[in-house]
Amino acid sequence: MIHILVLGAAAGGGFPQWNSNDAVAHRARAGDPDTPLRTQSSLAVSADGKNWVLLNASPDLRQQINQRRQLQPDPNAPLRASPIAAVVLTNADVDHVAGLLNLRESQAFAIYGHARVLDVLAGNSIFNVLNPDFVARRPMPMDGVLALKDGRDAPLGLSVRAFPVPGKVALWLEDGNAPDFGTAEGDTLGLEIRDEDGTSFFYIPACARMTPDLAARLRGAALVFFDGTLWRDDEMIRAGVGTKTGRRMGHMSCDGEEGTIAAFAALGVQRKIFIHINNTNPLFVAHSPERGRAEAAGWQIADDGMEICL
Amino acid sequence: MIHILVLGAAAGGGFPQWNSNDAVAHRARAGDPDTPLRTQSSLAVSADGKNWVLLNASPDLRQQINQRRQLQPDPNAPLRASPIAAVVLTNADVDHVAGLLNLRESQAFAIYGHARVLDVLAGNSIFNVLNPDFVARRPMPMDGVLALKDGRDAPLGLSVRAFPVPGKVALWLEDGNAPDFGTAEGDTLGLEIRDEDGTSFFYIPACARMTPDLAARLRGAALVFFDGTLWRDDEMIRAGVGTKTGRRMGHMSCDGEEGTIAAFAALGVQRKIFIHINNTNPLFVAHSPERGRAEAAGWQIADDGMEICL
Repeated sequence: MIHILVLGAAAGGGFPQWNSNDAVAHRARAGDPDTPLRTQSSLAVSADGKNWVLLNASPDLRQQINQRRQLQPDPNAPLRASPIAAVVLTNADVDHVAGLLNLRESQAFAIYGHARVLDVLAGNSIFNVLNPDFVARRPMPMDGVLALKDGRDAPLGLSVRAFPVPGKVALWLEDGNAPDFGTAEGDTLGLEIRDEDGTSFFYIPACARMTPDLAARLRGAALVFFDGTLWRDDEMIRAGVGTKTGRRMGHMSCDGEEGTIAAFAALGVQRKIFIHINNTNPLFVAHSPERGRAEAAGWQIADDGMEICL
Repeated sequence: MIHILVLGAAAGGGFPQWNSNDAVAHRARAGDPDTPLRTQSSLAVSADGKNWVLLNASPDLRQQINQRRQLQPDPNAPLRASPIAAVVLTNADVDHVAGLLNLRESQAFAIYGHARVLDVLAGNSIFNVLNPDFVARRPMPMDGVLALKDGRDAPLGLSVRAFPVPGKVALWLEDGNAPDFGTAEGDTLGLEIRDEDGTSFFYIPACARMTPDLAARLRGAALVFFDGTLWRDDEMIRAGVGTKTGRRMGHMSCDGEEGTIAAFAALGVQRKIFIHINNTNPLFVAHSPERGRAEAAGWQIADDGMEICL
């Protein structure tokens, strides 16, 4: 069995974003039940319900731990303890790595990531706050099955298969002089998490387009969490709050001919959930027409605190 | 007039710390009103109640913004806006700089810090997420009066005088082979914030000892927020949750012959508030004997959301 806990459903900046001043942000801040606050994208997964693996570590991680009893120490554990045994990173976006800075204080756990992402952490001395005597950093092979282990090498009953998907290097690592901003394979990963009985699901919080390879991989899957950043490619420009398209940011859109809903239509995925949803995406507003269309196409919208047993 | 808003009262890790498993942490997580949750140390200050300057940017900043209407956009402002006009840094501790990572999305503001701290930010590429077209980084001279300005150079009606205090370089920058872990002057600052009428207060969230210079500076002050990390120097060792003394971490203790309460006894400071309080410090427990002693000596304990007009 795989226990899945959605820690945060929102893309970078969360919902509302700190400097958002549109009508939806005001509704959210005023406590409108149709627009609940959401923290930044991350899942926690567990085989036994006791030891948890984070899939990405969002800047909101401290708040997420305070809100979820599953991530708080077992009263029978030592005076300093945590059920968080490992963190698997899908890219080096701030909304996926900054949460590591909350996991200091000489607590043992393991970090898994592509070698390029681990190199980025190594090149930023602020991550030295994670004491190397306690925190192991382990590169993930591409498309191999890797048994996840805690910081002291004890197996966690889950494996990960990480694979590259189309995407873009993290914003803060962009090289304006290089083709495709210096993006290389491994900068954006999808993950397949599997338990010892063979039950598995996919977590792909960023993806720039559906490829035949990716479609073949996802066909018939029991559950896929997928990039729901923008509803339409030019949504931020039309709203007057940004200058970039989704494509420029490395995200395919939910809607449209080349969008995610269309791309999944014939894949036979049993349960499809949008996650990493930007504050501008109308999916975050209950009863919006766009949300109705997504739900009619068989999609769910991730919500902070959502729990799934698979 | 100076408006002061306590965004967070706790030292690094907050209260409770993510991996704390002692009785007080359990009381806090269970919602005991004597042990409310606290976020990490930061103040917001304003001359006009509209434009705010953060004194340090804690990892909890996104949550702090969501909790404090003063830091949310004015409904009459543009679609992307923030009342946060500047951030002044007292050191490079993770609990004081990591919050900067929440202030992305091409919003104009200014960062003030010692040149050594700004060099540390420049050396960590993750801070490139703060778009240099919008975010100015300005070195603070030591012991000179500097008028604070927003990211577009508009004055904010407040000035800062920054001065070095005894301390230690940030944990993640420690050099185990250098004397005093590589600490140099400027690694730990105190701040005096002053409005145009000459009203002023001090913010000193980390200080390793009281010197004659510092005592002379603080004598007769209207208000001082001061380092309340530990109640006693060996508190973490005695509690079985750490191996370091307060002295080793660059903090003087509240109690004891060389402690803060004793050091302030003859200074005639009108209002004294402990801030940057560690999760192990019994000051966080209402009705604790230690809190009673601090209050009897004329001290207050900072609390998240506390507001002061000076």
